[in-house]
Amino acid sequence: MLSDPTPRLSVVGAGIGDHELLTLKGLKTLQSAGAVLYDALTNEALLEHAPATAVRVFVGKRRGFKTYTQEEINDLIVSLARQHGHVVRLKGGDPFVFGRGYEEMEYAQSYGIPAEYIPGISSSIAVAGLAGIPVTYRNLSRSFWVITGTTADGSLSPDIHVAASSDATVVVLMGVAKLPEIAAVFHAAGKGDLPVAVLQNGSLPSAKNVFGTVDTIVQQVDKENLGSPAVIVLGEVVGLKTYTSYVQHPYASSAI
Amino acid sequence: MLSDPTPRLSVVGAGIGDHELLTLKGLKTLQSAGAVLYDALTNEALLEHAPATAVRVFVGKRRGFKTYTQEEINDLIVSLARQHGHVVRLKGGDPFVFGRGYEEMEYAQSYGIPAEYIPGISSSIAVAGLAGIPVTYRNLSRSFWVITGTTADGSLSPDIHVAASSDATVVVLMGVAKLPEIAAVFHAAGKGDLPVAVLQNGSLPSAKNVFGTVDTIVQQVDKENLGSPAVIVLGEVVGLKTYTSYVQHPYASSAI
Repeated sequence: MLSDPTPRLSVVGAGIGDHELLTLKGLKTLQSAGAVLYDALTNEALLEHAPATAVRVFVGKRRGFKTYTQEEINDLIVSLARQHGHVVRLKGGDPFVFGRGYEEMEYAQSYGIPAEYIPGISSSIAVAGLAGIPVTYRNLSRSFWVITGTTADGSLSPDIHVAASSDATVVVLMGVAKLPEIAAVFHAAGKGDLPVAVLQNGSLPSAKNVFGTVDTIVQQVDKENLGSPAVIVLGEVVGLKTYTSYVQHPYASSAI
Repeated sequence: MLSDPTPRLSVVGAGIGDHELLTLKGLKTLQSAGAVLYDALTNEALLEHAPATAVRVFVGKRRGFKTYTQEEINDLIVSLARQHGHVVRLKGGDPFVFGRGYEEMEYAQSYGIPAEYIPGISSSIAVAGLAGIPVTYRNLSRSFWVITGTTADGSLSPDIHVAASSDATVVVLMGVAKLPEIAAVFHAAGKGDLPVAVLQNGSLPSAKNVFGTVDTIVQQVDKENLGSPAVIVLGEVVGLKTYTSYVQHPYASSAI
């Protein structure tokens, strides 16, 4: 495993917790990294795939760590590419789903540094799936709508109102703090009995899932003391739960 | 690589064409297969990961091949699990996005055969990404809505009408035959100038992408003679195209 000395950027989807949900392409890309930037949603076991000599920089938000602004991360990518060649930016989930992967690629390219996108397993589909909920199901849900709960100005996304009147399975990322508001919107749309799940910590052993309805979920989540990161799923598919995965802790399975 | 003789079913997302978009977990799962069922959207290079002794069954639709009904596939899973132990059902993209992976798991479990879901890279996010389109982008698109173009009765999904009035990036899978109808719905919603892309053959060297607007796309697609499988993306994010991936043919890169 040798670092590639040519300045370039790979924005790589790290998947959702379970370190085996990285793609083969992501693995191969990490193996030629001269520098790796990662954040709080990245499983640190993935860093072992990078050459021992590669620089590793934590740029996420966590107590006791310096917090980098997006502008600082952009500059860091450019300077690390010039110093160390191939920069791998590991992002939880898929880099283009509410990440700022695209902006980082645009910035690098504006400095003449070529950039590529390597897709990742997105929590928007897979967290529900691992909890026994398919985002689509024949004759029950023919579409799914993925919405962020956290908008730039802190208000509830207007899409939530339209979503409540649609037949889509609605998946809300980064929305636990807005759960009471979201439930109120769906209740007002006459959907008090619609099944809802709040799924914390995706594929990790610490996963904690709460199942209820629009009218009961807020109280249940309070009782179970759920926090972030969590995915909210609203739709008839939540009521299926006809299978239970026999793999209880995928993260605990042995590494490749 | 030895087949696992215990009857069980793994429904594995095969990703979108480029065989390196399989996950490490998918690879490991294939390595203990006693039988593999795959369809037309699966890259056949993936079959090489299964033990040489594993039974391989093509159950997709292709000229000159027998077509299996869903009921026949379900029965085949059960009988193969009893004969060969670990059955891996490879499905293009993610098994729970318009696949019938969940139904196959339910069926197997009703016969006492445990079933698990291994997420895959979904065309609903990654085909757009590989064409230079992020499904979300700060201040431009705060949500994306994934809809099938093909409903059970052949009519246009009612969700398309609601979607045309939303701010979501709209991703339509299996919808090329319905493109004129979809464009008409968006035009009627006052979105004639909205950027649209039609992306054929995802990550493969044969990929062919057409970019236009709601009012021009039908003519452009006709001219370029695009067919299935293709992904339609409608939204302001289609107009970004500020980066071009330097990896032209990810499929052509060497295997791991």
